[in-house]
Amino acid sequence: MCKHCDYTIHGAHHHHGWDHSIPPVETVAPGSTLHFECLDSSGGQFTPDSVTADVETLDFGKINPVTGPVYVDGAEPGDVLKVEIQAFHPSGFGWTANIPGFGLLADQFKDPHLKVWKYDPETLAPSVFSDLARVPLKPFAGTIGLAPAEAGLHSVVPPRRMGGNLDIRDLAAGTTLYLPVEVAGALFSIGDTHAAQGDGEVCGTAIESPMNVDLKLDLIKQEKLAFPRFTTPGPVTRHLDAKGYEVTTGIGPDMMTGARDAVSAMVDLLGKQHGLSAEDAYLLCSVCGDLRISEIVDMPNWVVSFYFPRVVFE
Amino acid sequence: MCKHCDYTIHGAHHHHGWDHSIPPVETVAPGSTLHFECLDSSGGQFTPDSVTADVETLDFGKINPVTGPVYVDGAEPGDVLKVEIQAFHPSGFGWTANIPGFGLLADQFKDPHLKVWKYDPETLAPSVFSDLARVPLKPFAGTIGLAPAEAGLHSVVPPRRMGGNLDIRDLAAGTTLYLPVEVAGALFSIGDTHAAQGDGEVCGTAIESPMNVDLKLDLIKQEKLAFPRFTTPGPVTRHLDAKGYEVTTGIGPDMMTGARDAVSAMVDLLGKQHGLSAEDAYLLCSVCGDLRISEIVDMPNWVVSFYFPRVVFE
Repeated sequence: MCKHCDYTIHGAHHHHGWDHSIPPVETVAPGSTLHFECLDSSGGQFTPDSVTADVETLDFGKINPVTGPVYVDGAEPGDVLKVEIQAFHPSGFGWTANIPGFGLLADQFKDPHLKVWKYDPETLAPSVFSDLARVPLKPFAGTIGLAPAEAGLHSVVPPRRMGGNLDIRDLAAGTTLYLPVEVAGALFSIGDTHAAQGDGEVCGTAIESPMNVDLKLDLIKQEKLAFPRFTTPGPVTRHLDAKGYEVTTGIGPDMMTGARDAVSAMVDLLGKQHGLSAEDAYLLCSVCGDLRISEIVDMPNWVVSFYFPRVVFE
Repeated sequence: MCKHCDYTIHGAHHHHGWDHSIPPVETVAPGSTLHFECLDSSGGQFTPDSVTADVETLDFGKINPVTGPVYVDGAEPGDVLKVEIQAFHPSGFGWTANIPGFGLLADQFKDPHLKVWKYDPETLAPSVFSDLARVPLKPFAGTIGLAPAEAGLHSVVPPRRMGGNLDIRDLAAGTTLYLPVEVAGALFSIGDTHAAQGDGEVCGTAIESPMNVDLKLDLIKQEKLAFPRFTTPGPVTRHLDAKGYEVTTGIGPDMMTGARDAVSAMVDLLGKQHGLSAEDAYLLCSVCGDLRISEIVDMPNWVVSFYFPRVVFE
């Protein structure tokens, strides 16, 4: 599946949560290229036949498995792991869900909702949603990170300075990611692959999709890095931007409230303009709309904007 | 200057702050097209000859004048003012400043700093910064809004639901903006024109530049609108994105801290990669870098990312 890779890390070698005592499944030299088999974030609990009722029986103990960990020879605390994300091998199946209690508008969307996607893993042609919209795809790994220095098992849900559940939509093929190493060997794992997601991942899920990933792990010795950083090889939004945007805003002294106001207004707008149900609009916002901070200096009120790409409806 | 405009609103007709008792300078019918002369946000206090020392004597009573207000016939509370932003007529002069006490990293940048820009108002070719960087321009109005229902004089600094100092970089030519009307006549004003700015306006100022604006004002009767929204006619970032981005992040439970961490890391990175002083890097971030919310659902930690366009250095 990856002709040039030095190692294949199989999907059976996954773990739940971060813990530096989890034994590495492989030890590799810096500069090695690896092929990772990644499960989807339900850990296979959702299938192409899943329906909304299946959200209610989701076993949260099995969510967000990550494949690994991989021990990088010579990596020490204070180093930086350089991750060249080379290629994704998508599966063609995905799902997006509103999971009660999770998501930016959890108080407005209390009922489960599930959308199952089928897409062409070769062409990655825009994928149909509710017969009204077509979502351009851009695969990436939602969870990519290293084990923390702090002992014990840490939930996979919150991202940390060593990465983890970053859900950054531009960690796509061609991007180079830099992660701060906290433990010997770095202990790299990856999973939670997404076929598409907007900035924010506002409903709490993307197009969650099992997918394999090729990447190269390299080491930069003793370099200061407080939080992850990355470099993209080119534009990051051209799959979405051709027809411009509908944009809603939220304004006030709290950015969380501003974000909620902006997304809530977009859900209303999409319902009005395109006849989408609120639940469908919320899911659609999560897979292709972007949260931006338009201004963060005009005291005491900040402007958070939600950009929805019009190409989705054209 | 605007052959098709029905009215010209001269720069002498400006006001400081929002107050619905300020008498309108013109009354227009819905559907009218107007040419506004806008002062820069220093109200002319900075000139092409200004230097950093002039920041210290800035009279804050004169900042951010807006041209207007214009009374739109028939506008009533509960209506929406539709603003078709048609064209900008830039002046070729601009400035960017760090003003002590103002800006996202005010605690790190306590000294004043001023950069004066000269650009070609016809071609809007990328403008040189510190001999190291060239910033693509995209003119827009930082402050665009309506008078509030609440009586009294309100500071121009914070934006509100009727707009005002929104500092949204995509309110450029071709964009249509919708603003909620709170008082009879809507009382529209505009100013604080910018030749370029990134999402966030992180140092507190953009490329502040006097500029004239053509726009059309129209009315939508009795439509629900909590906060401003807008529609862009096409892509919003292609002037910046061709060569990809350097991206820094901030991760944690507070988005303001996350934004500060991300921008602070970019200031460091630009210094390291390009030899920029911290002060110059901070100003440069403000005029072309973008703050995005990468994820806002992975409790309790959110990811704020700062995207700096590499084209600026190529």
